[in-house]
Amino acid sequence: MSNELSSKGQAAKDAARVLAKLDSKTKNRALETIADTILARQDVILAANEQDISAGRANGLSEALLDRLLLTPARLESMANDVRAIANLPDPIGQQFDSRRLPNGLDLSKRRIPVGVIGVIYESRPNVTIDISTLCLKSGNAAVLRGGREAIHSNTALAQTVQAGLEAAGLPTGCVQLIESTDRALVKDMLRANGLIDMIIPRGGAALHKFAIENASVPVITGGLGICHIYVDKVVNMEKIVPIVVNSKVQRPSVCNALDTLLVHKDVAKAVLPPVADALAEHKVEIRAEPRALEILNGHAVVTTAGAEDFDTEFMALIMAVKVVDSLDEAIDHIYAHSTTHTDAILTEDYSAAQKFIDEVNSSAVMVNASTRFNDGGQFGLGAEVAISTQPLHARGPMGLTELTTYKWVVLGRGQIRG
Amino acid sequence: MSNELSSKGQAAKDAARVLAKLDSKTKNRALETIADTILARQDVILAANEQDISAGRANGLSEALLDRLLLTPARLESMANDVRAIANLPDPIGQQFDSRRLPNGLDLSKRRIPVGVIGVIYESRPNVTIDISTLCLKSGNAAVLRGGREAIHSNTALAQTVQAGLEAAGLPTGCVQLIESTDRALVKDMLRANGLIDMIIPRGGAALHKFAIENASVPVITGGLGICHIYVDKVVNMEKIVPIVVNSKVQRPSVCNALDTLLVHKDVAKAVLPPVADALAEHKVEIRAEPRALEILNGHAVVTTAGAEDFDTEFMALIMAVKVVDSLDEAIDHIYAHSTTHTDAILTEDYSAAQKFIDEVNSSAVMVNASTRFNDGGQFGLGAEVAISTQPLHARGPMGLTELTTYKWVVLGRGQIRG
Repeated sequence: MSNELSSKGQAAKDAARVLAKLDSKTKNRALETIADTILARQDVILAANEQDISAGRANGLSEALLDRLLLTPARLESMANDVRAIANLPDPIGQQFDSRRLPNGLDLSKRRIPVGVIGVIYESRPNVTIDISTLCLKSGNAAVLRGGREAIHSNTALAQTVQAGLEAAGLPTGCVQLIESTDRALVKDMLRANGLIDMIIPRGGAALHKFAIENASVPVITGGLGICHIYVDKVVNMEKIVPIVVNSKVQRPSVCNALDTLLVHKDVAKAVLPPVADALAEHKVEIRAEPRALEILNGHAVVTTAGAEDFDTEFMALIMAVKVVDSLDEAIDHIYAHSTTHTDAILTEDYSAAQKFIDEVNSSAVMVNASTRFNDGGQFGLGAEVAISTQPLHARGPMGLTELTTYKWVVLGRGQIRG
Repeated sequence: MSNELSSKGQAAKDAARVLAKLDSKTKNRALETIADTILARQDVILAANEQDISAGRANGLSEALLDRLLLTPARLESMANDVRAIANLPDPIGQQFDSRRLPNGLDLSKRRIPVGVIGVIYESRPNVTIDISTLCLKSGNAAVLRGGREAIHSNTALAQTVQAGLEAAGLPTGCVQLIESTDRALVKDMLRANGLIDMIIPRGGAALHKFAIENASVPVITGGLGICHIYVDKVVNMEKIVPIVVNSKVQRPSVCNALDTLLVHKDVAKAVLPPVADALAEHKVEIRAEPRALEILNGHAVVTTAGAEDFDTEFMALIMAVKVVDSLDEAIDHIYAHSTTHTDAILTEDYSAAQKFIDEVNSSAVMVNASTRFNDGGQFGLGAEVAISTQPLHARGPMGLTELTTYKWVVLGRGQIRG
């Protein structure tokens, strides 16, 4: 393990013990101080960001990536506001639940506590540095951050800003530790830093998640990859279908909860597919259709023949695969075979079909007559989102502050011994 | 991956999809059938067990290990009763919680679902085969089991019994799959069987847990190792202290929630240690004391000088380490440095000391004035125990049926799209 990781990991671990004891008031005051510090240090942050932008331009980063990297006074203002919003969220730490009195008189409760040290490995967006630092702080966790190489100056300036805020609020700067080395080996070291890091959240593409799963000995929250389905059942309300499919596909095509595959029951395929395709064509969506769908859509829009791999692709773009199915069961089987268990929806007016779909599809979010775009911490009212988990352990779907906690059992006795 | 693991893993995965849809009635009927089948096949099971016992004797297994391995008609009867007790527990699957209506009218709930396929790697006790199979069945999970080599005949007969019961109840035998190869490489393959196994529970000693952490790419629940502390604070009630310390240490010394280290405040060490040592001496407990404690205990019992490693040892035997501390803070620091975060208790009549201990010690169970032996699924009223987790993710402390589940978000819309 590198010196940087072991010393920063230890600083985070030490800070985590302090953080776990803080009351909400102290944490919220620190968050407000961090928000103030972001604005106060605006010039330093923007100058650092300018270095990343210049380097990015020199290295030929796309305009889209440069835009993700770019910080502006308005974006910093919005960051500071987000930090204040986190201060205003309820603090999950200390909540007691599942309380009961046992027959022998022991009083038993579960009490929420922080996880400890959370390692986050992320890519180009520098706002993640602030997001994660402050969500961890609010939930009493220390954070070890490893951002993308192309945002290193911005991330360093932002992490220093957070640390300045922490210091001003009288908290240890160990609460937020940014790994500054851009050596790729550090990522693997973080994934195996048992004893220093308690949980790893990779925030990035499929390759990063796969690397984390294969290499981590620290528990990892995986997710992010969303091959999302909408199945249009045979009893349909056309007024709902077109808006929901269009919204799911085009409202923000580059994110994980955007629609990838549309499945349509054969009885309604001729009625449903042409208007859906026409509406999507207005948004320049390319449709990749298997033969039965292709036949119906012939001449209607930008339609090409779907290859087998199109049903296993997260497009992240204005592309959608389409398939006609014979039954609800076939739709569920298709989803079972191809879904990444992120978000899958049924559009139907048939009560039993809706119940069956909800019962049998076990994705992180299963929806009836709603846009897949709703699977999101903000939309679900969590107030914040750390990640979207598609794995079964610990948390599933959007993770907010509560999902950054664990619990201990508190046992209040009066001298009881076991018989 | 071996053929055995890939074919049995796939059978389990297919069965898991069927299991996830079953109602409680069907699962309970299958459990009752399994209980009946255990009794009906008693002769076959006992004959298989006899093979393991003979082999064990030939291989020089200790009497204690042979006893753990041994099945008798009475033990099978008790196993069958345990299975019926599991049938009578509430079914966690399908429970909805955190339900709310969002401002846009979406109805949102979390719904409990099974994890999927649970891999369990365990050591000599053949009853684990029945325990885990039936707890998994009740919670809608398929199980892939890998028991100890020395119990292979017993485990095979028990797994076949479960499968016979499943078949008689009309359920796929894939629900419970026993790996029969005793090749050690299979353990590593199981730990990396992503896509077939969703969660691994190692049930065994520290070496097994360490191996699992280092080698698994499938999420692992770790725990089991318990270096447990009792701290006797300066305001004491001697009538509670002796019974609790004795019970924690001697009631069943070979298990993870047994007491390992006794910390005593310096102000009461002279009053507390001698009667505690005398009471423990009656149970033939060896005390390993650091110098200050040793001085007080001189002549009182079987006392030896504690080495540094004694404070990092899970004794699993009638041995206890003892240390005198200057303050509650020193006790908490000691626990922070040496605890495996399994079970730690304070004995005190001082309200503020009790609260501080509970606030600052973040072990899976933190107790006041009670025996450490209570950290147990049965004692906590969970009805059953799959494992005791000491890691922060997913579940902590005793894990019952609910801890074998995850959840999905169910979103009931009326045509909503995201703005």
